[in-house]
Amino acid sequence: MPADPLQRCVAALARFPGVGERTATRLAYWLLRMPPEVAEEIAAALVELRRNVVECEVCCDVSTRTPCSRCRDEHRDSSLICVVEHPQDVAAIERGGAFSGRYHVLHGAVSPLDGVLPEDLRIAALLKRLEGGGVREVVLATDPDVEGDATALYLARLLKPLGLRVTRLAHGIPVGTEIEYADRASLARAVQNRREL
Amino acid sequence: MPADPLQRCVAALARFPGVGERTATRLAYWLLRMPPEVAEEIAAALVELRRNVVECEVCCDVSTRTPCSRCRDEHRDSSLICVVEHPQDVAAIERGGAFSGRYHVLHGAVSPLDGVLPEDLRIAALLKRLEGGGVREVVLATDPDVEGDATALYLARLLKPLGLRVTRLAHGIPVGTEIEYADRASLARAVQNRREL
Repeated sequence: MPADPLQRCVAALARFPGVGERTATRLAYWLLRMPPEVAEEIAAALVELRRNVVECEVCCDVSTRTPCSRCRDEHRDSSLICVVEHPQDVAAIERGGAFSGRYHVLHGAVSPLDGVLPEDLRIAALLKRLEGGGVREVVLATDPDVEGDATALYLARLLKPLGLRVTRLAHGIPVGTEIEYADRASLARAVQNRREL
Repeated sequence: MPADPLQRCVAALARFPGVGERTATRLAYWLLRMPPEVAEEIAAALVELRRNVVECEVCCDVSTRTPCSRCRDEHRDSSLICVVEHPQDVAAIERGGAFSGRYHVLHGAVSPLDGVLPEDLRIAALLKRLEGGGVREVVLATDPDVEGDATALYLARLLKPLGLRVTRLAHGIPVGTEIEYADRASLARAVQNRREL
């Protein structure tokens, strides 16, 4: 780390993904123009985050306590588990408002090229949950990309022999998009997954 | 501030200029995936920055001590002062390697619409330096925009009666740019400021 506090702060901010040295420099100079409390408040929030946020022992989502509030919520359908790649995905599906079951966060997707193998994901914890019984359907909500599809396929092969219903989120044309402007991949999936009316 | 540490961290990161809630969320989740030391190291660097960086009492640049190392450097030409808007500008001109005088940082430019008046800038400190004598030229290196030009004009009127040489950085076509692709404003300045060969 550089000795100069300004250079050190720039180097520290540039560790954030997607933040280059130029942006980090701009942010550091901005901090210097702000009252000292601003830097202290931001710093405290960063430290608190890592100190107070843990991984839920049931669903592996991030939370302030374990089991998390969603895993404790009696009103959620515990026979339905939605498997996602990242904690952010839980928040996104909750915003959608159409899912009332429980979640399981894998913390990634299978990607041999990046060195991420099935054993690096929270699959053992998922199997442990299923062993407990009472689950009738697992919705695979991994991303619609190569890694997400591979992970979904892997999980489907693993879970189907357990006698569960294994489903995948529907992919197609986004609501509000005109067909003329829909992207090719979404249109292809929309045709493949067309439904009877 | 929100009660949840994750929401609080997102809110804290979103205070940085140019960082929206989406980016802040991405950075917060990244921190959660990193070892706890990463958050602590970044937090420490932010706090250290505001604690250990002060404004030089001579040139108003940011530094770990006052007077700063450039103001103490005997090898720099103290009869030549380059006036810039921001501390970053000092670093940029130093990278250019063509200036061996001293600097003065205004910490902004005159901008009545944004409520920045001449008395909000470090102009009194500049006049105090000039009163000390020994300065023969002041180079106005404010930005080539409306505020920077207005600030340069204001300073030129203020400093010329003191019997100093007052100059402005040359504006024109950037080195390496083909004339065909140069922007209109730079080309206009290049024509206006054309030099005898």
